[in-house]
Amino acid sequence: MKAVQFIEAGRPPEVVDVPVPEPTSGEVVIRVAGAGVCHSDLHILDDGLGMQGPFTLGHENTGWISAVGAGVEGWKEGDAVAVYGPWGCGRCRTCQTSAENYCERHASIPTYGGGLGSDGGMAEYMRVPSPRLLVPLGGLDPVKAAPLSDAALTPYHAIKRALPLLTPDATVLVVGIGGLGHMAVQLLQALTPATLIAADIDDGKLEHARAMGVEHLVNTRDADAAAERIAAIAGPRGVTVALDIVGAQPTVDLCVRVVGRNSRITVVGLGGGVVQYAANSPPYGCEVSVPYWGSRTELMEVIALAETGRIHAEVEIFPLEQAADVYQRLREGRIRGRAVLTP
Amino acid sequence: MKAVQFIEAGRPPEVVDVPVPEPTSGEVVIRVAGAGVCHSDLHILDDGLGMQGPFTLGHENTGWISAVGAGVEGWKEGDAVAVYGPWGCGRCRTCQTSAENYCERHASIPTYGGGLGSDGGMAEYMRVPSPRLLVPLGGLDPVKAAPLSDAALTPYHAIKRALPLLTPDATVLVVGIGGLGHMAVQLLQALTPATLIAADIDDGKLEHARAMGVEHLVNTRDADAAAERIAAIAGPRGVTVALDIVGAQPTVDLCVRVVGRNSRITVVGLGGGVVQYAANSPPYGCEVSVPYWGSRTELMEVIALAETGRIHAEVEIFPLEQAADVYQRLREGRIRGRAVLTP
Amino acid sequence: MKAVQFIEAGRPPEVVDVPVPEPTSGEVVIRVAGAGVCHSDLHILDDGLGMQGPFTLGHENTGWISAVGAGVEGWKEGDAVAVYGPWGCGRCRTCQTSAENYCERHASIPTYGGGLGSDGGMAEYMRVPSPRLLVPLGGLDPVKAAPLSDAALTPYHAIKRALPLLTPDATVLVVGIGGLGHMAVQLLQALTPATLIAADIDDGKLEHARAMGVEHLVNTRDADAAAERIAAIAGPRGVTVALDIVGAQPTVDLCVRVVGRNSRITVVGLGGGVVQYAANSPPYGCEVSVPYWGSRTELMEVIALAETGRIHAEVEIFPLEQAADVYQRLREGRIRGRAVLTP
Amino acid sequence: MKAVQFIEAGRPPEVVDVPVPEPTSGEVVIRVAGAGVCHSDLHILDDGLGMQGPFTLGHENTGWISAVGAGVEGWKEGDAVAVYGPWGCGRCRTCQTSAENYCERHASIPTYGGGLGSDGGMAEYMRVPSPRLLVPLGGLDPVKAAPLSDAALTPYHAIKRALPLLTPDATVLVVGIGGLGHMAVQLLQALTPATLIAADIDDGKLEHARAMGVEHLVNTRDADAAAERIAAIAGPRGVTVALDIVGAQPTVDLCVRVVGRNSRITVVGLGGGVVQYAANSPPYGCEVSVPYWGSRTELMEVIALAETGRIHAEVEIFPLEQAADVYQRLREGRIRGRAVLTP
Repeated sequence: MKAVQFIEAGRPPEVVDVPVPEPTSGEVVIRVAGAGVCHSDLHILDDGLGMQGPFTLGHENTGWISAVGAGVEGWKEGDAVAVYGPWGCGRCRTCQTSAENYCERHASIPTYGGGLGSDGGMAEYMRVPSPRLLVPLGGLDPVKAAPLSDAALTPYHAIKRALPLLTPDATVLVVGIGGLGHMAVQLLQALTPATLIAADIDDGKLEHARAMGVEHLVNTRDADAAAERIAAIAGPRGVTVALDIVGAQPTVDLCVRVVGRNSRITVVGLGGGVVQYAANSPPYGCEVSVPYWGSRTELMEVIALAETGRIHAEVEIFPLEQAADVYQRLREGRIRGRAVLTP
Repeated sequence: MKAVQFIEAGRPPEVVDVPVPEPTSGEVVIRVAGAGVCHSDLHILDDGLGMQGPFTLGHENTGWISAVGAGVEGWKEGDAVAVYGPWGCGRCRTCQTSAENYCERHASIPTYGGGLGSDGGMAEYMRVPSPRLLVPLGGLDPVKAAPLSDAALTPYHAIKRALPLLTPDATVLVVGIGGLGHMAVQLLQALTPATLIAADIDDGKLEHARAMGVEHLVNTRDADAAAERIAAIAGPRGVTVALDIVGAQPTVDLCVRVVGRNSRITVVGLGGGVVQYAANSPPYGCEVSVPYWGSRTELMEVIALAETGRIHAEVEIFPLEQAADVYQRLREGRIRGRAVLTP
Repeated sequence: MKAVQFIEAGRPPEVVDVPVPEPTSGEVVIRVAGAGVCHSDLHILDDGLGMQGPFTLGHENTGWISAVGAGVEGWKEGDAVAVYGPWGCGRCRTCQTSAENYCERHASIPTYGGGLGSDGGMAEYMRVPSPRLLVPLGGLDPVKAAPLSDAALTPYHAIKRALPLLTPDATVLVVGIGGLGHMAVQLLQALTPATLIAADIDDGKLEHARAMGVEHLVNTRDADAAAERIAAIAGPRGVTVALDIVGAQPTVDLCVRVVGRNSRITVVGLGGGVVQYAANSPPYGCEVSVPYWGSRTELMEVIALAETGRIHAEVEIFPLEQAADVYQRLREGRIRGRAVLTP
Repeated sequence: MKAVQFIEAGRPPEVVDVPVPEPTSGEVVIRVAGAGVCHSDLHILDDGLGMQGPFTLGHENTGWISAVGAGVEGWKEGDAVAVYGPWGCGRCRTCQTSAENYCERHASIPTYGGGLGSDGGMAEYMRVPSPRLLVPLGGLDPVKAAPLSDAALTPYHAIKRALPLLTPDATVLVVGIGGLGHMAVQLLQALTPATLIAADIDDGKLEHARAMGVEHLVNTRDADAAAERIAAIAGPRGVTVALDIVGAQPTVDLCVRVVGRNSRITVVGLGGGVVQYAANSPPYGCEVSVPYWGSRTELMEVIALAETGRIHAEVEIFPLEQAADVYQRLREGRIRGRAVLTP
């Protein structure tokens, strides 16, 4: 079958021929519906991030079960599923609560997940090591649902941890209204009554936020003006939760500047920014966190949100063979919403 | 009456004569039992911290009610009380939950509290602006109880926020076993079943921890060796909660190095250290926070712990007149536990 | 001034002349804008509920500050406010967190609140014993906002306690879509992504729910059919949270029948129903609770929701003089939404 | 091999010869170390509780892994383990969080667990359907550790849900200081700083509580006197959390009588008592719950507590062959602590 592979750092992805995987005991093989094309893949292609090629890319996958190994119960051929991405050991205390994204043995397990060190979903078929990593898709279109398992799950996890702070009188700031950011906006609208501020450096992205119903829009090009506008909206209490989807130094600095006491800064984007946390800056009682992806049950919740129509990922769909070109378009900022490869 | 006052930055405290305060409507005056001598006063004496002298020092106070203003109900002369230290506006949403330490109007209120911009407890009498700032002392000795309202309340608040993480299989590290640290050790023993590691640069302080029943003791002089020992005790999951009572750069760095994923670093000490938070360092899912003091109901809980004998502040008691000398001893590290001035 | 008073059990309310109250130290007097007409007043008028008349009725009040006593700071004449209803001692640990609805001294304080043993808001002016019981109304119309402090606050408190269970894959049932119920529906829509089922014995009320955007409507006349329909919507997991606004035996029984394991039944309505809790019925892990009203900060949050337009109480407005007639209409079920008396 | 089996309702258990189980794909077989003898087995033996015999009894088991099926990774022969008892589907959202005790498919799965419809641990070997149901025992003696998986886990789960209420100024009442009760006492001492009251109808059990360090002991023979003594200890706020390990009508009634507002009654014992929950009785805001067993990660936490010596189950050890006699002794109240059968 065809597969889009990472070969080694510095080389573009290649479409190669590989054998169709067969499930051994406890495993499942899915026929791939869609594999999301994620910014973090560009880091793998450029730097390797410590992963050894060749392996098939794609860590944001959906499909239909095509074969199950011995001992797999409760699943049958044809079931439409999302594949949970961050594969942990499955046995530690944290994995047992379904939060494999924080597996306690992450330092000693062989791969971060399919498409992240072992074969992922940019292929016709994909091996999944355990059915615990599958979530039923219900009535969702599997191709369009691919981004849910990362572009939606990652902000969902970040927001869920902040929910107790997001009371009706709170203010929440989202910086970066791109792939994850446009999901974050919808998730916040579905989950919280807090006042929502959308910020971006690009007016087109802010227009997107407006189209999704966001009232308070702030362009961040001029940092001082942006901080002032945000402060005016948030009032004396300051921003309660700042969600930085970009994670570059200027966006992180903006978040530090606008949050109030007893608040939260969550940096989701891996843009290289550093939060410098000293006494009272960010203000006392602020909790700063860089979370990672989400848990298996959180993916279930994200899919439930999509099934009831409360969230909706915008996708552009391409055939597997155009992978190299699609990555290039992503690099150049020419993808709207999320690109999905489909075999 | 006699009062120990801050006059201006760079000048030692002075014992001066001031009028006995009279309560106006809604106010209470207490006859002071004890006023704790806190490291942060040294910063005020040296730098002013933006506060205008002269005012009476002492922000960790106990006493007996001596007079109540019009409209004060439910309190009577002679009641033994602790005075809650961080005075907020009393009206914002946060103050209404009793967390005046995070008052939403902190930027616009005239003082941080008695002894922190307005007259505090190093005097024979002290004015308290509202009875909401008083907590009954029950059967506790008011003089010895003075440190509860800061040296115990501050770590209590920090620990309380971390409690959901402190399950029986978790590991908690306390760095710095001095005034606040020796309270933190006792609080953790009373409140959580987690494995406790006490760390300090001074073997005498570690002996103190051992005397309080701590099994795992780590000297931090050699940072590499300390990190290795802590990692060995905590196991592959790493430290779950690190409580840095020192807050200097080396202690902050140690905490960042030893915590695991999905953990918490709480910096209580204001030693000038900065946590640099970038992707995965500290590990993903770690929550970093610099909290401030504690809430009114948390002070009630601290006093309940002291009443049942579960925590016990070590104090050295001095007359008010020796204030300048006591501050000098504090500066030179020659106070064991907490110094308390009593009129 | 005119005031609508409860005289003694079994007598209709009377409009009498009483002196305008003057604030003493720490008190506030408001000029009343609106006073909601609540079902529970009928119980007072019929049975007394242990309260001694005469006193002015009305425990759901709004108005403008007209005079403040000595020592009251931060409020000025003309400020539009809601009056928090359940007056506690103000000093116990629970009151200090703003949850006066659960005052620890409730057994020894003289009144349940204004309109509930002492003079309430069905008059031109009303005495409020402390400014801590006031919440600013922002830009809301004070007359129409009167029901927020009970008809909205009571279900808000009940829902807030259930929020951790109300994930996107959960199902929440509201039984009774009247005064409190129509607020509960809006609150659930604003606060949670759970699947919402509205149930009532009256098709007109279900139409109201449909008009508010509720998809799943169940008439409860035929209990078996209702239980079956609810089970079909909720699926094998059962209902996660059942909110019984009626609280009669048939509605309570329905809730017990449809919830799943690890769920919650909250009985808000005081219709005389009793939950019989034995092993596994309701199913294991279900938490049953009869909450009371809400806290001061919850009232702030309710008002924030109303200010952003997310909730909206339907009101019929009447002059004070028609009180007896309005109570009669309420008794006969001829009030749509909430009746509000205005001087 | 020998196995103690339930044959049919009304018949004593029988020691029979059955084949040694072999693991199929994904399964594990353990050599049994100990199997706790639980009161609920008497209900099975007497009434069947809907379960079809014959099957091997014993739902509180420990042992050493003797064989693993295909696809089982991370476990090896000889590993000492506790077997988690309430076997769920393993796939629903709730099971994925490790809370199989509340499996959403409990109505459609074939067995409640080993010893509860399928073969349990009163045999030389026991089949476990998945390694997810095993928890490593660390350095604990496997025979003596058997009761941890039920007699300790069940109260642990109940207590864990109540932890946020168990602040230093709270009061917790345990009714019934027998098998589960003596673990509940130790768990409360290890986990919370609340004031602990131990109540029992048997002075010997109260002596046991005293020996474990409990100060407040109340005999419940005279219900009025008991309620009065408990009220005196708890003060005006009342009991915060009442843990009824007996669950008979008199114990349940006592709990309803002594709790305050905003409290919690948790009925762990299945003694046939019914909580009648009407408005304000139990007091407003009380949460009543009948939980079931505990989750997999809670069992991990219980074992961590036992490893550090904070909890300790008292056991009497008997050979498998004496099963019928041991059940008879249990029925007659002649077991001290927990009886454990060992092959």
